[in-house]
Amino acid sequence: MEKQIVCLAGDGIGPEVMAAGKRVLHMIERLYQHKFHLQDELFGGAAIDAYGNPLPARTLAACLASDAVLLAAVGGPRWDTAPERPEKGLLALRKALGVYANVRPVTVDEATLHLSPLKEECAKNVDFVVVRELTGGIYFSYPKHRTNEQATDTLTYSRREVERIVEYAFRLAATRRKKVTSIDKANVLESSKLWREVTEEVALRYQGIALEHLLVDAAAMEMIKNPGRFDVIVTENLFGDILSDEASVLSGSLGMLPSASHAEQGPSLYEPIHGSAPDLEADRANPIAMMRSVAMMLQQSFGLSAEANAIEQAIQNVLKTGKATSDLGGKETTSSFTNYVLQELEAQV
Amino acid sequence: MEKQIVCLAGDGIGPEVMAAGKRVLHMIERLYQHKFHLQDELFGGAAIDAYGNPLPARTLAACLASDAVLLAAVGGPRWDTAPERPEKGLLALRKALGVYANVRPVTVDEATLHLSPLKEECAKNVDFVVVRELTGGIYFSYPKHRTNEQATDTLTYSRREVERIVEYAFRLAATRRKKVTSIDKANVLESSKLWREVTEEVALRYQGIALEHLLVDAAAMEMIKNPGRFDVIVTENLFGDILSDEASVLSGSLGMLPSASHAEQGPSLYEPIHGSAPDLEADRANPIAMMRSVAMMLQQSFGLSAEANAIEQAIQNVLKTGKATSDLGGKETTSSFTNYVLQELEAQV
Ligand SMILES: CC(C)[C@H](C(=O)O)[C@@H](O)C(=O)O
Ligand SMILES: CC(C)[C@H](C(=O)O)[C@@H](O)C(=O)O
Repeated sequence: MEKQIVCLAGDGIGPEVMAAGKRVLHMIERLYQHKFHLQDELFGGAAIDAYGNPLPARTLAACLASDAVLLAAVGGPRWDTAPERPEKGLLALRKALGVYANVRPVTVDEATLHLSPLKEECAKNVDFVVVRELTGGIYFSYPKHRTNEQATDTLTYSRREVERIVEYAFRLAATRRKKVTSIDKANVLESSKLWREVTEEVALRYQGIALEHLLVDAAAMEMIKNPGRFDVIVTENLFGDILSDEASVLSGSLGMLPSASHAEQGPSLYEPIHGSAPDLEADRANPIAMMRSVAMMLQQSFGLSAEANAIEQAIQNVLKTGKATSDLGGKETTSSFTNYVLQELEAQV
Repeated sequence: MEKQIVCLAGDGIGPEVMAAGKRVLHMIERLYQHKFHLQDELFGGAAIDAYGNPLPARTLAACLASDAVLLAAVGGPRWDTAPERPEKGLLALRKALGVYANVRPVTVDEATLHLSPLKEECAKNVDFVVVRELTGGIYFSYPKHRTNEQATDTLTYSRREVERIVEYAFRLAATRRKKVTSIDKANVLESSKLWREVTEEVALRYQGIALEHLLVDAAAMEMIKNPGRFDVIVTENLFGDILSDEASVLSGSLGMLPSASHAEQGPSLYEPIHGSAPDLEADRANPIAMMRSVAMMLQQSFGLSAEANAIEQAIQNVLKTGKATSDLGGKETTSSFTNYVLQELEAQV
């Protein structure tokens, strides 16, 4: 298989974890006889420094022309007071790619169970996916304005926008434990009332998949009290932002969790859920979230299940030997941990 | 002291915990020679059943004319498909009273530490207050509309609305550990940019109080990973709804936590944070949250610190003997637990 992958290393630990991701991709290329064209482009703070724009036209064009986009992390205090901010590039990229479905699997590894802030009996049953609407809602609706005296944001959803993300969640649930939890604030918001109505309609088309509705405030509690109840969660953009971050804490380390964002057509975007961690010492970042993002890309964009499973298996095998980066209480560096994963990959095939 | 208190028992376990609250008030009246006129009014589902309106004019008039309002709980599945919903009454009451400052102390009792979903070392340092803006934001801004194809909500804040709630938080922090954490989504929302700007300005007037800003997604993580870092949290209406519910889980039982909502002038509203728990068997509800709401009322509306402290001390003393309701793993009923608290109150004074 031959594929064009745009690599957006971004800022902070971004370039280090991207390097680890590329090493895994090269190893897969060699072991399974594929050809991955990895094209580096500037994005985020790095692109602001070079061009004064977090998403330069050249980067965007490359992403649009690719088979998949791999992103590491953007942002940092350096750009907090800059006229252009790295996050703006991320929002613009999401919108330009039309990646409406952000998918974040949340699981707890044996190796990190002890790091979860939750008691082990609560944390160990965690195995769900958050499906977040990513290109609509209050992030992208107008009017938005601010004066010295007043500021306004608008939260709009169309039936079509709700329908396609909820359909996505139901299709995903069909491959899993067949339960969808839709999260809204239908006792207050008009947009949530539409959300709930459309979700009920979609559910009629998916017999055999259970649907429950939860209010966002109740969901924020259940996420901690009873996370084992969830299979597929689907929610709008801002609630998804809050709840998927809350969920990520259950795993004990943000450094473990990948994400994928899919469009109706065109390239998907894959990225670790962690940020750019600008304060971390060099070569200390956990590359697992990036490796898992690579695995999601192989699986979901290219249909390469064996390759994706091999990566996950290699990560598991290394963790089992007790080797880990410092966020997990281990002594490995980004590069030494990556070395072990590559060795495992070679040994397996 | 002579005071007029409107009691809104509401639905589900509401009447039971209200009865416990009244018994405490009567005991305080007797022990400290006060006169509390307790006036019952219909509210929520109970008022829908009687008048087709969750906040009848008579109830509202009584609340507006009172010295303080004590509310137990509203809602239940019976009214989920009714044309009028109990929550509408709650929102209308908040707006009519102008109670812009919702105050929720979150602490973990020794007696419930083992019930927290968090590991003990995380849960035991929890001692913060969430100050939530309660009469503005997306709950109350216009336009709001919905067609079959599209729905819109509006999120507006004025400088004045932000200023008064942030001022409230700073004044509260001055009486505590002198730290304010303001939570927003300033990297995306215009209203949050105004929020952050105004918060910075208010902070200049409160030297000696530390201010930090957190994004709402990061806050949802920190609430679980590191709740000990918080002293006073201040945030807008919807973020406050989500985060204060998330926070309440830390304590191990929703049945323990009270809240107060204050206006610029006029009566404050006091209520347990728990809901109406329509499925609970009779006489099983934990009355502690209601007793603490009564204590907050005595303290914050009437300045009766000794009386408020006596209630808290009595609750603590009973818990220390191991007596507890079923939510805490105990065998006491609402009424038997209340009996013990009343005995302790009498014994103390
Ligand atoms: C950086 C920010 C704009 C972004 C968001 O809010 O979507 C981030 O928090 C995320 O979840 O990817
Ligand atoms: C019942 C509902 C409208 C209300 C809210 O969202 O404010 C409740 O969740 C609360 O927090 O008091």
